[in-house]
Amino acid sequence: MTLDAPALDQLFRSARTANAWQDRTVPDTKLQELYDLLKLGPTSANSSPARFVFVRTAEGKAKLKDALSEGNIAKTMTAPVIVIVAHDPRFYDELPKLFPHADARSWFAGNAALAEVTAFRNGTLQGAYLIMAARAVGLDTGPMSGFDNAKVDEAFFAGSGWKSNFLVNLGYGDESGLFPRSPRLSFDEAARLE
Amino acid sequence: MTLDAPALDQLFRSARTANAWQDRTVPDTKLQELYDLLKLGPTSANSSPARFVFVRTAEGKAKLKDALSEGNIAKTMTAPVIVIVAHDPRFYDELPKLFPHADARSWFAGNAALAEVTAFRNGTLQGAYLIMAARAVGLDTGPMSGFDNAKVDEAFFAGSGWKSNFLVNLGYGDESGLFPRSPRLSFDEAARLE
Repeated sequence: MTLDAPALDQLFRSARTANAWQDRTVPDTKLQELYDLLKLGPTSANSSPARFVFVRTAEGKAKLKDALSEGNIAKTMTAPVIVIVAHDPRFYDELPKLFPHADARSWFAGNAALAEVTAFRNGTLQGAYLIMAARAVGLDTGPMSGFDNAKVDEAFFAGSGWKSNFLVNLGYGDESGLFPRSPRLSFDEAARLE
Repeated sequence: MTLDAPALDQLFRSARTANAWQDRTVPDTKLQELYDLLKLGPTSANSSPARFVFVRTAEGKAKLKDALSEGNIAKTMTAPVIVIVAHDPRFYDELPKLFPHADARSWFAGNAALAEVTAFRNGTLQGAYLIMAARAVGLDTGPMSGFDNAKVDEAFFAGSGWKSNFLVNLGYGDESGLFPRSPRLSFDEAARLE
């Protein structure tokens, strides 16, 4: 059954990337709710390589600020929460727990190229699930790649070895900050039937 | 506003990866509906690098079969539709149309490493939007990476230069093919607050 029109609007048709924010906090319980949905999205061999840092404090934002592209600083520093979507290059150490019915750890542990592409692909999928889950729980998002990954990794992941992928500002968007929606490719430009 | 419980169930909590399929076709109009939702998901500079081949015919499936891992053949050959989620490495040639307010083409055209990571990251995000949009319109999905990308590229993209990323089986799932849901990492294992 197709979801009703207001739900499709909230998820896709009316949802927009926020560039300005209402003065309204996002409680930590909302972040837990968000995680408990996004974690259910499918990943290869249930590998679940994504890791998330939810930056809400002034101190956390200050650590992040220096890594941002100039044009992303204002909207990010005013966002109630910034999510660092990262992944754990050693995600496969969790596979005995996450995929107990096969020795999936061995598929990746000795194959660095496969492990790397799996972490990036599936960590990115989980970042998209975060965007969609945020919309599903009534939050607006502002995803972006315009930052220095190495600086973020040094500031946040020196201990864990996690690798930053992209950032997602989270909160309740202020519509005055919206740009007009840009065009999309038509079906015939981006897809074909075989 | 948070979507109602049945919608969250359909998108995340009850949604499962299908391994077997009801004998029920997916009309091409449904694929158009699916594309018209997924295309609206956000990408970096609206770059929209993903390209999609919807394989429905016996001839198309035969072209794909030889590239599949042994364990993925049965569920894929019986799926009403298999989507090849790919991306166009020359996605930036569309940016004058997709991102008309800046010369975004130049950010990528002379920077092969940035173009490649942008195509893979954002094409993957769009693959996740496809999964979520499919669930939103009542379809079940079976995403997978277990295939030979080079063989798929040769069979389907010799002319276009598109690169395959992952596959998504689409249809109406047969619950008898479901595996028990595997565990997920807890918030404390996969996330932290700062």
